[in-house]
Amino acid sequence: MDFIKALKNSGVTYLSDKAQMLPYVNDASYFHGNFPLSVIMPSNEKELSIALALCDEFNVKIVPRGGGSSLTGSSVAVDNSVVISLLRMNRIIEFSGGDRYVKVQAGLRIDDLNAFLTEKGFIYPPDPASSLAATVGGTISTNAGGLRGTYFGSTKEWILGLGIALPNGKIIRTGGKVLKRSLGYDLTSLFIGSEGTLGIIFEAYLKIVPNIKKYSRIIAYFQKSEDLGDSVYDIKNSGFNPLSAEFADKVSSNVISRLSGIKLPEKTNYMLIADIPEFDNNVENTMKIIRSHNPVEILKLNSDLSDLVYKARKGLYSALLNEREKATEYVIIADIVVPSSSVSRALETIETLVRETGLKTALFGHIGDGNIHANVFTDLNDQEKMRKANIFLDKFGEIALQNGGSVSAEHGIGYEKKDLLIKEMIYRDTLLNIELMKDIKKIFDPKNIMNPGKVFDL
Amino acid sequence: MDFIKALKNSGVTYLSDKAQMLPYVNDASYFHGNFPLSVIMPSNEKELSIALALCDEFNVKIVPRGGGSSLTGSSVAVDNSVVISLLRMNRIIEFSGGDRYVKVQAGLRIDDLNAFLTEKGFIYPPDPASSLAATVGGTISTNAGGLRGTYFGSTKEWILGLGIALPNGKIIRTGGKVLKRSLGYDLTSLFIGSEGTLGIIFEAYLKIVPNIKKYSRIIAYFQKSEDLGDSVYDIKNSGFNPLSAEFADKVSSNVISRLSGIKLPEKTNYMLIADIPEFDNNVENTMKIIRSHNPVEILKLNSDLSDLVYKARKGLYSALLNEREKATEYVIIADIVVPSSSVSRALETIETLVRETGLKTALFGHIGDGNIHANVFTDLNDQEKMRKANIFLDKFGEIALQNGGSVSAEHGIGYEKKDLLIKEMIYRDTLLNIELMKDIKKIFDPKNIMNPGKVFDL
Repeated sequence: MDFIKALKNSGVTYLSDKAQMLPYVNDASYFHGNFPLSVIMPSNEKELSIALALCDEFNVKIVPRGGGSSLTGSSVAVDNSVVISLLRMNRIIEFSGGDRYVKVQAGLRIDDLNAFLTEKGFIYPPDPASSLAATVGGTISTNAGGLRGTYFGSTKEWILGLGIALPNGKIIRTGGKVLKRSLGYDLTSLFIGSEGTLGIIFEAYLKIVPNIKKYSRIIAYFQKSEDLGDSVYDIKNSGFNPLSAEFADKVSSNVISRLSGIKLPEKTNYMLIADIPEFDNNVENTMKIIRSHNPVEILKLNSDLSDLVYKARKGLYSALLNEREKATEYVIIADIVVPSSSVSRALETIETLVRETGLKTALFGHIGDGNIHANVFTDLNDQEKMRKANIFLDKFGEIALQNGGSVSAEHGIGYEKKDLLIKEMIYRDTLLNIELMKDIKKIFDPKNIMNPGKVFDL
Repeated sequence: MDFIKALKNSGVTYLSDKAQMLPYVNDASYFHGNFPLSVIMPSNEKELSIALALCDEFNVKIVPRGGGSSLTGSSVAVDNSVVISLLRMNRIIEFSGGDRYVKVQAGLRIDDLNAFLTEKGFIYPPDPASSLAATVGGTISTNAGGLRGTYFGSTKEWILGLGIALPNGKIIRTGGKVLKRSLGYDLTSLFIGSEGTLGIIFEAYLKIVPNIKKYSRIIAYFQKSEDLGDSVYDIKNSGFNPLSAEFADKVSSNVISRLSGIKLPEKTNYMLIADIPEFDNNVENTMKIIRSHNPVEILKLNSDLSDLVYKARKGLYSALLNEREKATEYVIIADIVVPSSSVSRALETIETLVRETGLKTALFGHIGDGNIHANVFTDLNDQEKMRKANIFLDKFGEIALQNGGSVSAEHGIGYEKKDLLIKEMIYRDTLLNIELMKDIKKIFDPKNIMNPGKVFDL
């Protein structure tokens, strides 16, 4: 019996028509996938387990998929694979504000989760810009960061427990609803950031926090990156954490201006959007620190404009994609992180790199935690542009390393950053880490059928 | 050449005299260790690496040791082993408040670290009661919690990166100084809570936060455990997090009273000590919630008494140890965690268990995150008492499981909870987790020489 026939007999819901499978071939990255044998859409743990056991039996590769918003190719379909979409497993299973957890299925979108929670006075802190599409499972798989990471940290700090289907169909459960545990090795964390290469996360206990409603959103405009970077560093050094602190360069600021209606003052090369909790004199103190760093202008937003600006920031990457002029043009988004004290120096080096490379580039990111994204416009049909883009990405990564940072902050490795992962480990003289990761992979996925070719090559 | 001779030739500092080694044989648990072949005291990474390579060559077991404050036997010396003490590696290497990290050697004591940080306006949040003795490396190895866990979570949320010596002497480095990373599998977290069974943590990048100085310490006394538990649950359900929320039963409250000088009102069976950040009307709101649950009394402490009470709470376990009447008496401290909504029910069941068992028992713990410690007085020479104590511990663990909690919150497994670890995995139908842990152990420690017999038996 062949795989598709066995799949049909199993009763699990799947697609095998090419037209229907098309939306599941690629993700939000520029990598091209191959058509899978089928797209399986389990509606519960049992169906998921049955589907995986079949993949194991027939040696079919497995590509797990949440919202398909990966920027590095983590969810791109590969040859002789099935895509397993978690989108039908999107229920909220349990909620307890007093116990500080919500239990959900992994296919739930982040915005849908937070719409549910905010009504009850709580939030799930991780807030990637892709929250409209991104799912709980997908963001766990890349250890997603986002706009509130400055205050709340990355996804890894908010996962209490997981339900995981291993590639042979067996189910394990790690952690649980309680807020602490010291119970042997932390298998939960092993799956966070593993990009679907060890198993499929199908449910999760998430830690939640009371929503912080009292904050001011302020915007400051700068001419020089140094003043931007030093402002944020001085705010943090003063012993204060903004709820979020986002920056945008001129290209990105223009897009935010267009999307939100906010006017940029002349001489603006950078903007800072920061949310400041309103207690003590935080807002005044923060504005005072910023004023000491030559802002072109600084203002506190009223609530209408405030929402528009936040939405514009979240829609920035999609809006940049719309600025492509040809179908073959691509925007590659790079994702480094440096210590706050190095942001000014890093930005200056990046400005030089942008000038030297000559490609259209837009910078933005979560400056509060040192996370800088470079969006590079290139063209798959233009070898020279592609060559330049690759040089840019490589040098951009070097800037992170030279400043004590990392080449990958919150988007994961996928296909895109496999070389950069190795580069960072070599730079830090700890290449053995990758061998250890490969050995761990072999425990969970001895046949190498779980999302093969992503993160590293075996 | 034999091991000791090779060790001598290596130039690494070590002890081999029994009188000198005596303090390194046991830890703070009731388990008895065996004399090791030697106690090695490396002063740097290179010496540590040399010592481990020798252990690997001569097949000598390795018992890593920080402050020796393990309550479960994690640092008890075993036959044909060397104890590797990290106490000479206790330097603060780098600090940056603005970047929110401090880099330290693993042998640094938690209190020494926080003495350094508070001068600069920051803290390292994990605050186990044993902070005077416990080291950074030891608390990472058990994923320690402590008094501030309610607000800040456990140790695992505060570790940015580690330097680790593997049992063959090879060095790896994970993570680093930046606040986020998505760079393959999270090897850092794998070592958190691994109790020295995978390698020796010798340095760490720790995430720090601005010190919260404005808070009120309040005390409430209750007659019934239900009123205590419901108070804390209602506070959390109202969308508010105390900085800490500790409870003590009558036996423990009497000790706190004796140590701090605070007088207990009549009819007190439980006390709650809670630190409430002073913004908005938090203090008033919290006291109002407590008042609705029949407290015998509730008061806000002045700052002198406040410090005395905190110190008394931290010294509670040691003070209980002093209440032993014979050298063969032992106090076993159990360590469960349940969801906040189940604390009242769990405490009532525990009260019945204490009555039925008939052994002297003192309850206290971090009620803010549902962590309940039971301290059971038993006697190694009294078989009946030991039998009762073991039944108590087993049933105490069951109470956690039946309430959706865990048998081990913050002390680790060590020797003591190996059976309970298995019991929890069976209860949750996920025994495969332990097999996966063992497979991971084999990657890092193929010869099973790293702290063998702790956490699980291979």
